[in-house]
Amino acid sequence: MSEKGTYRLLKTEGRAKRGELTTVHGTVQTPLFMNVGTVGAIKGAVSADDLSQIGCQIELSNTYHLHVRTGDQTIRELGGLRRFMGWDGPILTDSGGFQVFSLASLRKIKEEGVTFRSHIDGHPIFMGPEQSMQIQSNLGSTIAMAFDECPPSKAEKKYIDLSVDRTTRWLERCRAEMDRLNAAEGTVNPNQMLFGINQGGIYEDIRVRHARQIREMDLDGFAVGGLAVGESHEEMYHILDCVVPELPQDKPTYLMGVGTPANILEGVERGIDFFDCVYPSRNGRHGHVYTKHGKLNLNNACYAKDMRPIEEGCQCPACRRYSRAYIRHLHKAGEMLGLRLCVLHNLYFYNHMMEEIREALDEGRFAAYKKDLLQSMEEGEP
Amino acid sequence: MSEKGTYRLLKTEGRAKRGELTTVHGTVQTPLFMNVGTVGAIKGAVSADDLSQIGCQIELSNTYHLHVRTGDQTIRELGGLRRFMGWDGPILTDSGGFQVFSLASLRKIKEEGVTFRSHIDGHPIFMGPEQSMQIQSNLGSTIAMAFDECPPSKAEKKYIDLSVDRTTRWLERCRAEMDRLNAAEGTVNPNQMLFGINQGGIYEDIRVRHARQIREMDLDGFAVGGLAVGESHEEMYHILDCVVPELPQDKPTYLMGVGTPANILEGVERGIDFFDCVYPSRNGRHGHVYTKHGKLNLNNACYAKDMRPIEEGCQCPACRRYSRAYIRHLHKAGEMLGLRLCVLHNLYFYNHMMEEIREALDEGRFAAYKKDLLQSMEEGEP
Repeated sequence: MSEKGTYRLLKTEGRAKRGELTTVHGTVQTPLFMNVGTVGAIKGAVSADDLSQIGCQIELSNTYHLHVRTGDQTIRELGGLRRFMGWDGPILTDSGGFQVFSLASLRKIKEEGVTFRSHIDGHPIFMGPEQSMQIQSNLGSTIAMAFDECPPSKAEKKYIDLSVDRTTRWLERCRAEMDRLNAAEGTVNPNQMLFGINQGGIYEDIRVRHARQIREMDLDGFAVGGLAVGESHEEMYHILDCVVPELPQDKPTYLMGVGTPANILEGVERGIDFFDCVYPSRNGRHGHVYTKHGKLNLNNACYAKDMRPIEEGCQCPACRRYSRAYIRHLHKAGEMLGLRLCVLHNLYFYNHMMEEIREALDEGRFAAYKKDLLQSMEEGEP
Repeated sequence: MSEKGTYRLLKTEGRAKRGELTTVHGTVQTPLFMNVGTVGAIKGAVSADDLSQIGCQIELSNTYHLHVRTGDQTIRELGGLRRFMGWDGPILTDSGGFQVFSLASLRKIKEEGVTFRSHIDGHPIFMGPEQSMQIQSNLGSTIAMAFDECPPSKAEKKYIDLSVDRTTRWLERCRAEMDRLNAAEGTVNPNQMLFGINQGGIYEDIRVRHARQIREMDLDGFAVGGLAVGESHEEMYHILDCVVPELPQDKPTYLMGVGTPANILEGVERGIDFFDCVYPSRNGRHGHVYTKHGKLNLNNACYAKDMRPIEEGCQCPACRRYSRAYIRHLHKAGEMLGLRLCVLHNLYFYNHMMEEIREALDEGRFAAYKKDLLQSMEEGEP
C-alpha cells in the first residue's frame, strides 16, 4: 500500500480510532466527514474554493451522475475530476451502485452486472464491476469504491445472503480490474485506492461472514454500506458493534451515507474513520441549520428579527457576517444566497465537529465530548 | 452638501467626467457601475462579502421589493439595510417608482401618489413621494432616489408633458420630506442624499425643460431616467447629448438601468458618473459571459472541452480557478454553482471595465480606450 498511501493509527479510545491517511493527493486526519459534491459541485452554489475555506478534507463525487452527464471519458481527457472541478485535495468516488439501485429504472441484475436505463434520457446502460472501476479510473479519484449490490432494506434474508456472495465475487473483479487500470499507460491516477464494502442488511451473521471474507482481500480500506436505509438507529449501531471489530484496525473504515451528528458520534465510538451524508447540504437548502444547541428552522417567524449569527462564535463564512434575520429574509424572498449561506454553515458545522472530535480523541476525552455535545443538542437553545 | 458628502470633479476628457464622491459610508471613484441586489442580495447567490471581492463600490437595492417583503420598518429596527445585509460600503436605493409602474397591477395615479396592488399577495399599497422617502429613510441607504412617474415608452407626448410636470412637483415634495426625515430623531442615516431624476421620454424639448427645472433644486445628484425602455441606442445617446450639459457638472450624474458595455462607454463619453443594470447578473444566470472579445454563450457545445478560463488573465473568483468546460458542465447539470460563477465573472468584468475607464480618464486616453474596447468586442475571439 506504500505507493498508494498509508493509514496510521495514531491513538485509540475504547474502539474509537484517531488516524491519518496519506494519499498521493494529500494527507487527511480521521475521523473526518466527506463533503458531497454529486456532479463535482456541492448543491447550494458551493465551490471547491469554498470547500477549502470550510475545512473539507475529502470531496465525494458520484460516479453514476458524472457518467451520464458530461461523461467520464471527457473528464479523463480534461485531466481528471480534481483538475476539472479545481479541487486540490483527495476525492472519493462512489461506485455508482447505490444510484443504479435507487435512481435508475428497469434494472436487470445478472452475475455479469446490471443493465438499467439512465434517469436522464432513458438510454440503456450496462454497469458491472469492471465498468465501475473504468469510470472511476477515468475520473482519477483518490479512492474508488467497490461496485456492490444494494438490496432494498426490506429484502428477505435469503435474497441478501445470495446478494452478499455476489458482492464478494464482484469485489474480486473490482480489485483485478483496478490493478490492471492502475498499471495501464495514461491512467489519470495510477495510485488509485480501492475500498471494499461490507453488506448484509440488518443480519448480523451475514454481515460478519461477509466482513471476514473481504478483510482477507488486501484492500486499501473498508466501508460499511447498506445502512441508514430505513432500519432503526439501534439496529445500525448494533451492526457496527458486530462488523467493525471484524475489519482491520490498521485500515480506514467508512460508514457510508451516515448521518446526523448523533449518528456520527456513535459511529466514531464504534471505530469509524470516514463519514459522508447529504443531510448538511439538503437541510441547509431548506433553511434548517445545525448548532451545538440543536437544529434551527430559520423559516420560523421567531428568527425574523434575530440579529445573532446562526451560532455565536462560529467561524463559518455565514456566521462571520450575516444574521439569522437576514438569512431568513433571503429564504423567504427565494434568494439562492440564503441556500448557499445555510449550506456553508452546515458543512462547516460538520467539518468543525469532526475537528473537535479529533482533538478530543487526541486528548483522551472523546467520551466526555460526545456526552456533552449530545446533551447540549438535546437541550436546545438556552 | 458638506455633511452628506462631497463630489469632486477630478478630471475631464471632452464631456467625460472623472470624479470622486465622498459619502458618510465611504468614498467612491467615478465613473462606476452599481451592482444590483434587489432584496439585499445579488441574484445568483452573491453576497456582500463577494461584492467586496469583485470591486463593487456601491450596492443598489430596490425599495419596492424590500417594502413588500420583510418590510422597511423591520429593516429599520434592525439597524438599516447596510447592517442587515452586512455591506460596509454605500448603498443606493431606487424610489420604488419603476417597480410600481412595471410590476404592480391595477395602478391609479393621482397628484397625491399611486395606489396599486402588491405583485406578491395583491394587497393594496399607496405610494407617493413622502412614502417613498420614508421607506428609503427606514432602509437608511446612502443615496435615495426621488419618486417619479415612469410613463410607458410609447406614451404620447402630451401625456409625458403633463407627467414630467407632476414629477417635478413630486421632486419638491421628496426634498421636503427627506429634509424632515434627515432632521428627525432616530433616523438610520441622517445624512441621506437625494438624487433627482430627469424624465421626458425621447422628447428633447421636454427633457431639456425638465433638466432646467430640477437643476435649480440643490439636490445631491441627478439621474437620467426612463431610458433603455424600448428606444434605440441612438435615441438614448441623443437624449444624453441634450440633457447632460443641462445638469450641474459638479454633481454626480446617473444613467439609470443602463446597460451594455458599449452603452456605458457612450454614457461615460457624455458625462455620466453612475450606471446600474441587471444585464451582467441576468446574463450570467443564463451562462452568457462578458469578455473583451465579446460575449460567450457557455451553453454552446464548443466549450465542452475548453479548459481555458472564461477570460485569460481575468482575476475574478471564477477565472482564477475554473474552466469554461467545468462551468458549462455545471449549467448543463443544473447546478447553482454555474450561475454563481458566471454572475461573479460578469459583475467583476463590469467593475473592472469601470476601473480601466477611470485609469484611461486619469491618463487622458479614454477616447482611445473606448475605441479599442469596442473594436475588440466587435471582432470576437481570435
